[in-house]
Amino acid sequence: MAEFDLIARIAAVAGQRADVLLGIGDDGALLLPPAGQHLVAVCDTLNAGVHFPLDTAAAAIGWKALAVNLSDLAAMGAEPAWALLALSLPEADTAFVEAVMQGFSELAACHGVALAGGDTTRGPLALSVTALGFVPAGQALRRDGACAGDEVWVSGSLGDAAAALALPAAGSDAAALRQRLDRPQPRLALGRALRGRASAAIDLSDGLLADLDHIARASAVGIEIQADSLPISPALARQADAMTRLHWQASGGDDYELAFCLPPHQAATVQTEARRQGLPLTRIGRVVAGTGVRLLDARGNPICLSRTGWEHFSGASA
Amino acid sequence: MAEFDLIARIAAVAGQRADVLLGIGDDGALLLPPAGQHLVAVCDTLNAGVHFPLDTAAAAIGWKALAVNLSDLAAMGAEPAWALLALSLPEADTAFVEAVMQGFSELAACHGVALAGGDTTRGPLALSVTALGFVPAGQALRRDGACAGDEVWVSGSLGDAAAALALPAAGSDAAALRQRLDRPQPRLALGRALRGRASAAIDLSDGLLADLDHIARASAVGIEIQADSLPISPALARQADAMTRLHWQASGGDDYELAFCLPPHQAATVQTEARRQGLPLTRIGRVVAGTGVRLLDARGNPICLSRTGWEHFSGASA
Repeated sequence: MAEFDLIARIAAVAGQRADVLLGIGDDGALLLPPAGQHLVAVCDTLNAGVHFPLDTAAAAIGWKALAVNLSDLAAMGAEPAWALLALSLPEADTAFVEAVMQGFSELAACHGVALAGGDTTRGPLALSVTALGFVPAGQALRRDGACAGDEVWVSGSLGDAAAALALPAAGSDAAALRQRLDRPQPRLALGRALRGRASAAIDLSDGLLADLDHIARASAVGIEIQADSLPISPALARQADAMTRLHWQASGGDDYELAFCLPPHQAATVQTEARRQGLPLTRIGRVVAGTGVRLLDARGNPICLSRTGWEHFSGASA
Repeated sequence: MAEFDLIARIAAVAGQRADVLLGIGDDGALLLPPAGQHLVAVCDTLNAGVHFPLDTAAAAIGWKALAVNLSDLAAMGAEPAWALLALSLPEADTAFVEAVMQGFSELAACHGVALAGGDTTRGPLALSVTALGFVPAGQALRRDGACAGDEVWVSGSLGDAAAALALPAAGSDAAALRQRLDRPQPRLALGRALRGRASAAIDLSDGLLADLDHIARASAVGIEIQADSLPISPALARQADAMTRLHWQASGGDDYELAFCLPPHQAATVQTEARRQGLPLTRIGRVVAGTGVRLLDARGNPICLSRTGWEHFSGASA
């Protein structure tokens, strides 16, 4: 009874919430959404060797599978509540699953998320998570509200995860970069602080320029980004050359920071709130009339990068 | 921009509902759950070559990915509303995706389901669907309410899908059996009719005996099934020998019928309702004190089958 043994081990670390009326163990989960709020549903899959390197620790795989989904909820301004996990495994490896679930449940506990259901199947290693959360009616962050004159901001720093994929894994810098690749921190508190303030928001999974292009298209605006303003971590600042670092920051992907547009009068309030959270914010550009996303040098001239973002079917990236 | 082209084609057949406030195209879907109802969430994955044969038509793959999830909602007595689809593809094959979505959206339209979100990734062919629905508070069907003295019933007929996997694919019988494997019909109307009447219910995915064992364990009862009462389709009745047919019916899996327990005084009402739906119901056994599920012959002697159900990690089955 390999599958039922696995399910029992998963259920043991599922976490509890009073609004999970019936969790793992029936045909479906029975959940109690709060009155007067909208439900936010997101779904992201990690395939082995595509979305994480094959040498990734099992606990990091579990953490990241939930993190990339909570990051989507953060980008909607949502409060996370429940997750469903579809776990495909080549074999019923109990120790591996326990380690995956340790990482998953560690992050779930940080944000009060209960694993309410899912399934385990035989197949190539893959984790598909659906995360559900709430947002007060009318306050969800969307991609389509950016206006010319808004400022473009980003949380944290950019490019660490992409650098971790490209660089040799030795030394303390490599460990710091790899931690950003393996254990992204979904910016949920920032997302909530942006409710009613940001005109548009997105989480950075495919690379800054590619993700901002979604905002530009949805909002029918142009975006100009100052290359020298992009935030960089101390570990990344010590790697490679300036152009390579810029490439990782602007189009590397897997950052799981939030990029958002703010009317200038909202900046001070949001900065104060982010400082309280210990999360650096950086103003990196502005919304303009027009279309497309332009990366500009210090003189205002456009910089062309060979690739503008992570394309799920393009092959090379993780 | 292969991924975004695929997403546009998927969004074009997503279907619409007034309670989808924001669908495909942002970081998450924004949904409006109805007041006073519980939310039911289910999640099932189909991996190529594991949950469907590699020669399955693309449209059937899409249909089945949604059907197995709607079948879980049926087993909870839920009204389906929304689905999220995580689609992993080895390559961005537009024609294949369009055919998959044609089958998916055909079934979605039958039951008023809107595709509200999901993701597309590069990886081995797999479809992981999360389906969300509603049930009036306190009326969900569960596995844990069966009582000694209840009757055990099943909808439709059993074993066709398992036979389709095992038999050569030629002739009209083979086509009828294969249709049951490829395009299961989720018994949603029956599930709703069982609200407040059935003491326990489950949908049949792993095989009758294995699935009834879940009810027996959850309800802390025993279940006795009369082998000669198991419903059989005309096409299946013409195949193989009696013992092979019984094996397919009792433990073949992939039936996606509902098995449920009824207090005897509820039987007439439920039968009348099912007749109105054109769906045959068969009384196949009874709930008894004790534990476990026993398959009995006409004299009341136990029949031992070599395997009692589809085990996700056991290897052989589809």
